[in-house]
Amino acid sequence: MAYTVGLDYGTNSVRALLVDIADGRELASFVYEYPTGKNGIILDESDHNLARQNPADYLEGIEATVKGVLEKAKADKDFRAGDVIAIGVDTTGSTPLPVDKTGNALVMSDEFKDNPNAMAWLWKDHTSFAEAAEITELARKEKPEYLAKCGGVYSSEWFFSKLLHCLRIDEKVFEAAFSWVECCDFITGNLTGTQAPNVVKRSRCAAGHKAMYNKGWGGLPAKEFLAKFDSRLGDLRDRLYDQTYAVDTSAGKLTAGWAKKLGLQEGIDVAVGAFDAHLGAVGSGIGPGKLVKILGTSSCDMLVSESGQSVPDIEGICGIVDGSILPGCFGLEAGQSAVGDIFNWFVNYIEPGGKQAGSHQALTEKANKLRPGQSGLLALDWNNGNRTILVDQRLTGLLLGQTLHTRPEDIYRTLIEATAFGALTIINRFEEYGVKVNEVINCGGISEKNALVMQIYADVCNREMKISSSAQTCALGSCIAAAVVAGGHGSFADAQKAMCSVKETTFKPISANVSVYKKLYKLYTQLHDAFGKVDYNQSLHNVMKDLLEIKDNTNC
Amino acid sequence: MAYTVGLDYGTNSVRALLVDIADGRELASFVYEYPTGKNGIILDESDHNLARQNPADYLEGIEATVKGVLEKAKADKDFRAGDVIAIGVDTTGSTPLPVDKTGNALVMSDEFKDNPNAMAWLWKDHTSFAEAAEITELARKEKPEYLAKCGGVYSSEWFFSKLLHCLRIDEKVFEAAFSWVECCDFITGNLTGTQAPNVVKRSRCAAGHKAMYNKGWGGLPAKEFLAKFDSRLGDLRDRLYDQTYAVDTSAGKLTAGWAKKLGLQEGIDVAVGAFDAHLGAVGSGIGPGKLVKILGTSSCDMLVSESGQSVPDIEGICGIVDGSILPGCFGLEAGQSAVGDIFNWFVNYIEPGGKQAGSHQALTEKANKLRPGQSGLLALDWNNGNRTILVDQRLTGLLLGQTLHTRPEDIYRTLIEATAFGALTIINRFEEYGVKVNEVINCGGISEKNALVMQIYADVCNREMKISSSAQTCALGSCIAAAVVAGGHGSFADAQKAMCSVKETTFKPISANVSVYKKLYKLYTQLHDAFGKVDYNQSLHNVMKDLLEIKDNTNC
Repeated sequence: MAYTVGLDYGTNSVRALLVDIADGRELASFVYEYPTGKNGIILDESDHNLARQNPADYLEGIEATVKGVLEKAKADKDFRAGDVIAIGVDTTGSTPLPVDKTGNALVMSDEFKDNPNAMAWLWKDHTSFAEAAEITELARKEKPEYLAKCGGVYSSEWFFSKLLHCLRIDEKVFEAAFSWVECCDFITGNLTGTQAPNVVKRSRCAAGHKAMYNKGWGGLPAKEFLAKFDSRLGDLRDRLYDQTYAVDTSAGKLTAGWAKKLGLQEGIDVAVGAFDAHLGAVGSGIGPGKLVKILGTSSCDMLVSESGQSVPDIEGICGIVDGSILPGCFGLEAGQSAVGDIFNWFVNYIEPGGKQAGSHQALTEKANKLRPGQSGLLALDWNNGNRTILVDQRLTGLLLGQTLHTRPEDIYRTLIEATAFGALTIINRFEEYGVKVNEVINCGGISEKNALVMQIYADVCNREMKISSSAQTCALGSCIAAAVVAGGHGSFADAQKAMCSVKETTFKPISANVSVYKKLYKLYTQLHDAFGKVDYNQSLHNVMKDLLEIKDNTNC
Repeated sequence: MAYTVGLDYGTNSVRALLVDIADGRELASFVYEYPTGKNGIILDESDHNLARQNPADYLEGIEATVKGVLEKAKADKDFRAGDVIAIGVDTTGSTPLPVDKTGNALVMSDEFKDNPNAMAWLWKDHTSFAEAAEITELARKEKPEYLAKCGGVYSSEWFFSKLLHCLRIDEKVFEAAFSWVECCDFITGNLTGTQAPNVVKRSRCAAGHKAMYNKGWGGLPAKEFLAKFDSRLGDLRDRLYDQTYAVDTSAGKLTAGWAKKLGLQEGIDVAVGAFDAHLGAVGSGIGPGKLVKILGTSSCDMLVSESGQSVPDIEGICGIVDGSILPGCFGLEAGQSAVGDIFNWFVNYIEPGGKQAGSHQALTEKANKLRPGQSGLLALDWNNGNRTILVDQRLTGLLLGQTLHTRPEDIYRTLIEATAFGALTIINRFEEYGVKVNEVINCGGISEKNALVMQIYADVCNREMKISSSAQTCALGSCIAAAVVAGGHGSFADAQKAMCSVKETTFKPISANVSVYKKLYKLYTQLHDAFGKVDYNQSLHNVMKDLLEIKDNTNC
């Protein structure tokens, strides 16, 4: 018997998953909620853009969750902790944190205790929007190739935007930082005693998708480029990294200290880390032509190229990185800035009619009785900006078509449809550039919990929607990476074949719905282009008329 | 001492008001809720457009309310019912009902009992939208002058749309009807025993604003024109009317029967009827340059020309009718299809967080703490279509700028602002055509109850907002008409001077708010034109960007 542990660092908690590498059977899972801040996030009431985390929570989470799964797994007579052959790690990102020369987090020192700028800058921290715009502007002028691989716009969520913002607002922190590491590298470095920033094996996934890392131009952006923002940013370049690694590489061996603390064997492999979505895609069975959609508060839409084949630059696709998902394939990452977050916003804040009337379940039941087009409503899914294909945080939501008869379930369904239209827009963009989408596998909370959402996605996208069998695909992906690194499987394809599957129940397009949604999608595209594109120049007058005509044609 | 009674027929109830004509003092007021249907309206769950009323409710309401005020007025020692010198009548409109040759409502016969098509077709009945479009189309082609006086578009709310729709869906009712009368003429005819359709003195106000009546082309639309839709509609023309009368005319004398029933003197004058908004404008002190805004579920915006001066055709203004408000002046009628209805919709249906959290008062208090532009939201006030200046029922609402942080009070304030922008658009249109607005007097429930709404209107319109002293300006207007008809005052100007006033507290523009709202109004206009006008052709891309910039500049 052989087992691996996957550590999955999410936005509010970390989860460990223990699986049998022979068949992917999940022996145990254990969650640790980050104790610091609100739901694990340090917020600032006066600045909605700020979102930080305490790295001490990350380290405490290792012990809590690994011990947790080992304790639970005792129920399985055949299981022995000595048969755990490796650990894999996935985290949110870009979630960089400043560290000292030894790799310790600055915020864990007395000097910077409780300073949010010395903490981990969580992926959804948007304080750096001005710096992101600056980086985009300079790169467009001087290094367009930097942007070509990350959708043409550098995001406020990403590595260098955050570092530059820190330099601007808190020089002390910036200057005290010997280097910055991504959360995933912080974890694997700690587990293997290689956390010193010049030693730790940096994640290809994090570097390529968020830090403009590419072998084509010698790794990270040039020192001269970074120095144009501030010479100290240029200097930092020397204390970052030149090499990066895919998840089929061992980051090192589990230290004696950790082995003892966790009750695992010393010296087992820890796989190089990657982002949760990327290993989630692996855990969902991603392969060429198979789109994996991770549906949670936001969405990640992951694809890989055929092995060994390159991919053209695709406008608006956030990242195209060699080996970021599967070794040997280009990983492509797209996504929507808010999916479940939009539904939660509506239920929790706008229609807070008590937990009964306003709950997701009650609204879903009512929305399920509506036919496509019946409400006469149309929305844009931009309440948190648009990640793909417009790559613009400075876009906002839109709801159109309200009458005095509009009811909450009409709006709720419309918000679901809007996210489905956003999803279709991503698929269409991939296919426009010749990257085929032959199969769609969904995973994440929404895909498990809400059949209406999945049916609407099937109808809007006119594609069968499959659901990953595992409820923990990110952690499972980490388990798969660990299994490959430890030699338990010869390749990712072999490991996925053994350890991944989709549920029997799938959602197939209903043709009557498909045809209505085709009309609605045309209008969505019109609004999308009119509000989202600078160079669009067309009257929108027909939008409401057409909506009403569609509404009338539903004969309700 | 001399008193008059004003009967004010609203959408859900009828009110009688008893005033002293010397100073407008209101001795008593009494309301009778129409007993039939839901809140007095017969609805059809399968057709949201339908709204009818039972004319029997109207007649019962006379007795209930007049007796009611006389009983209450007993508290005043000096009052004697014998000193009531006349009655005035105002009603909703266009609210036509089919009648037999004697002027009895068809629905009061055994044959058509309970048939909604034989009832009064309430102003907000929109079942006739297709017929309205047909009438507009034919008139555009053959009789553009018909439309020039009513804003260029014939509405589904108006007289001939409703008659034609009745003919199409219920021939029996149409053929059994000897004629059709407006609600106001039905009441004055009954009170004076002149209800036979060929005898009753028809209201100039109703005819001119809703039935394309104009002396310029010989009264109602030509028989040949009407016959093009159906020969039977052409034939009906002969059983309608050629003469109409302003509210300074006596419709006749109170019959002995009614006098006995009500406890008033036989033979006192009943003034010719008019629509509630028009007499409401009179009761608010309307005169040249004085805009009266009647703010309720919808709004009516009323102006008059200088006495004896004509007014050009104004695109999008629903009606320009000689003598429809004040005798000798052209009456101009504009309005918004929904004002309070939009706020009610949001509070009752979308944010029904219990009577505490979601009430108008609670939301107003929270919205009052927000600064203009702070929410980043913008809305169009078209949840019930747009009456002025687009004259298009087939427009719907729009809300734009939502983020995951948007809260109900943000939306509530934005909806108020949207109606204020709609109000400004009407004022601007009047002034573009040389009809000056020197003073704005508000009346109706919202102006009395919600200071935030009034302040936002002042800030958006950059004009002082005054509030009529009377809470019953429509009924007061009827009292004024009655006073003039009975000779109690020599002219409307004299009567208004004696009987009307505005409150001491007014709402003055706050310059910091004015400047933000100027920016927001520019964006509102952009959305308004892009979504409301066929020939608009401009990118809307800047809208959200500009909103966010404005939001950022509020420094919150």
